[in-house]
Amino acid sequence: MTGREGGADLAPIGNSPVVILVRPQLADNIGAVARAMANGGLFHLRLVAPRDGWPQDRAWRNASGADRILDAASVHATVADAVADLHHVLATCPRPRHIVKPVLTARGAAAELRAICARDLRAGLLFGPERAGLDNDDMAEADALIRYPLNPAFMSLNLAQAVMVMAYEWWSAEDATVPRTLMTNETRVATKAELDNFLTHLVAELDASGFLDNLPKRPGMVRNIRHFFERGEATEQELRTLHGIVTELARGRGTRRRDGT
Amino acid sequence: MTGREGGADLAPIGNSPVVILVRPQLADNIGAVARAMANGGLFHLRLVAPRDGWPQDRAWRNASGADRILDAASVHATVADAVADLHHVLATCPRPRHIVKPVLTARGAAAELRAICARDLRAGLLFGPERAGLDNDDMAEADALIRYPLNPAFMSLNLAQAVMVMAYEWWSAEDATVPRTLMTNETRVATKAELDNFLTHLVAELDASGFLDNLPKRPGMVRNIRHFFERGEATEQELRTLHGIVTELARGRGTRRRDGT
Repeated sequence: MTGREGGADLAPIGNSPVVILVRPQLADNIGAVARAMANGGLFHLRLVAPRDGWPQDRAWRNASGADRILDAASVHATVADAVADLHHVLATCPRPRHIVKPVLTARGAAAELRAICARDLRAGLLFGPERAGLDNDDMAEADALIRYPLNPAFMSLNLAQAVMVMAYEWWSAEDATVPRTLMTNETRVATKAELDNFLTHLVAELDASGFLDNLPKRPGMVRNIRHFFERGEATEQELRTLHGIVTELARGRGTRRRDGT
Repeated sequence: MTGREGGADLAPIGNSPVVILVRPQLADNIGAVARAMANGGLFHLRLVAPRDGWPQDRAWRNASGADRILDAASVHATVADAVADLHHVLATCPRPRHIVKPVLTARGAAAELRAICARDLRAGLLFGPERAGLDNDDMAEADALIRYPLNPAFMSLNLAQAVMVMAYEWWSAEDATVPRTLMTNETRVATKAELDNFLTHLVAELDASGFLDNLPKRPGMVRNIRHFFERGEATEQELRTLHGIVTELARGRGTRRRDGT
């Protein structure tokens, strides 16, 4: 799940939310944020009053090639300035108190962001500084808050991890991959007739070997063998290998050597 | 979304998947992995042949308090040894080739892991080394592969980020938080009667001020004002504030000063 992709043009285009880091402290984290953004297809980065100034080499060194995002990042003095041209702003916040505000899950937020962007409106995501998080004035700039469903006994989330979760949900909100598939590459899933053909071959060899000589038990044994092989979604290639295995084993141990073949 | 939670006992109990880092290189990353695991409620860590040996102080320094996970981590010479007591193993892998294997999304994997653990079977998640990822022999130890839906133009995922996504999905798979709610804290959402009461107050003052003197347009204007206030899911506290605003403004600018009140 690792491995750098070279220069990568970072692909996707179209309207996507702006990530706004409010008073970020460590340039390393800003670089890691850019990398996480590229992973999830977020490309617009704004920095509000970065503690150590901007630009910082360490950010680029920690971005694993997501340079384009850092190159284009803008710096703003205040949150108000950073969100001025946006239509909707969501703020990540682990445990807001004394606030009346809609609260979204990360997944709920991603769905709403997709809907906002599809209407050609501009959206932003506020992330607070590493230690303190967003303050009450920052949160007052937002339409709604985002609270991730995570272990309430350990909510301490690294800044880049917080961005990763939202970037991942942003991407997933439009992703149509089926939850489980069989990757077959050069081969294909076998048909039931192909599987049946293999089982016929196997049972014939087992009959020949005497393995199924207990006639009262034979039907149940054959059925159990079938149960196992039906379970695995065998491929056509795997069935050919299994045919070969049965043929080879049926010749008996050392037969080839004894025959001199 | 940041801020350390102190010592944190890391709470949840019960059967949860083992995170297995295969040939991890950097102790910093192992610490960040432990933190991400704690975020998502994963507590069992195994290390296969960590490059720089084990234990490493840097891991603890980078774990933000998820020490218990590192303290309990076990070290194994091979993947086979690390998975020997498990019933199911899933391996994260960005782009497997020439392999016949089920492939799951992170969300699909989380659902299957929940089902496996609910059956009291032990599950493991394999994560490869930082640069190369899992090799073909590692993947052959797994029942299925996990491929995250992410930007195909930039799949370079930090090790701790890869663990974060799975930990987040593991937690989310059992989470029942509604995607959007209104957090009202000390107050509550206003009833329609309370909102109507406010609108009656507002319109009365607007009538008194002459704002609604254009009688043919009056019904439409009143309706549009209502449309705005109906949209916001006002709270009882906010309506009291709005009543106060209307009352105060209706007295006219500077009235208080001129009256000497």
